[in-house]
Amino acid sequence: MTSAAALERTLHDEIPLSQAMGIRVAAYDGTSLKLTAPITPNINHKSTAFGGSLYSLAVLCGWGLVHLKLAEAKLHKHIVIQDADIRYLLPVAQDMQAECRLDENILNKFLRTLKKHDRARLELAVIIKHQGQAAVEFSGRYVVHG
Amino acid sequence: MTSAAALERTLHDEIPLSQAMGIRVAAYDGTSLKLTAPITPNINHKSTAFGGSLYSLAVLCGWGLVHLKLAEAKLHKHIVIQDADIRYLLPVAQDMQAECRLDENILNKFLRTLKKHDRARLELAVIIKHQGQAAVEFSGRYVVHG
Repeated sequence: MTSAAALERTLHDEIPLSQAMGIRVAAYDGTSLKLTAPITPNINHKSTAFGGSLYSLAVLCGWGLVHLKLAEAKLHKHIVIQDADIRYLLPVAQDMQAECRLDENILNKFLRTLKKHDRARLELAVIIKHQGQAAVEFSGRYVVHG
Repeated sequence: MTSAAALERTLHDEIPLSQAMGIRVAAYDGTSLKLTAPITPNINHKSTAFGGSLYSLAVLCGWGLVHLKLAEAKLHKHIVIQDADIRYLLPVAQDMQAECRLDENILNKFLRTLKKHDRARLELAVIIKHQGQAAVEFSGRYVVHG
């Protein structure tokens, strides 16, 4: 199984709401993770994506990228979201796609701290675009510990 | 139908994810709105509440309180979440309950601005407690417009 397929299975098995939302792992290239979700189960009263669904997709996109990076480093740790902020810039009136990127220097620094202290924090930005424009900007601080 | 029961029906009809999460309107006394959700559909890999579910419950608690206050003022407006931040202080290992309170002075100022400009912003704090202690602190900025 590819790591992307394994991540999708992990999300669906361990976080049932991700299955109710229809979240899929769309792409992972080692640096960037893309998660998608269809609009139908995530719709709101204005026929656009519910703000809580957009947040959930974003927080899982960051979580998933940390999960994959830890697996590649053969580290089995807990990943916890500590705090986050989100800005809704445009309504999303179609299937949602979130993307999270992790710079290699930041990753390496994070892994060094984690190996040394068995605990490290990582701040990740996630973008959800609508028709090519940033519609949602999310920033989450994740704590990883043994 | 009481306004609390009508709100629950509105949430379930218009935001299907609120139904998948099992969100209920627990109490409304004119000042404070309490929403609950069971842990089972909202669980995560650590057997505590998923961060996206906690956020969704909180954002709907704020939204619901604005919705009720606008209905009481006989104003039919759009309510949009503009931005929010959330802090996870403690894991929530049981059914979730969110509470949002709205001070009467702040409400009256908000309604005056809304009537004058057909647009107003309202910042609302939502707390989710676990065993009597604040487990999640949410702050959301809602825009209401005609």
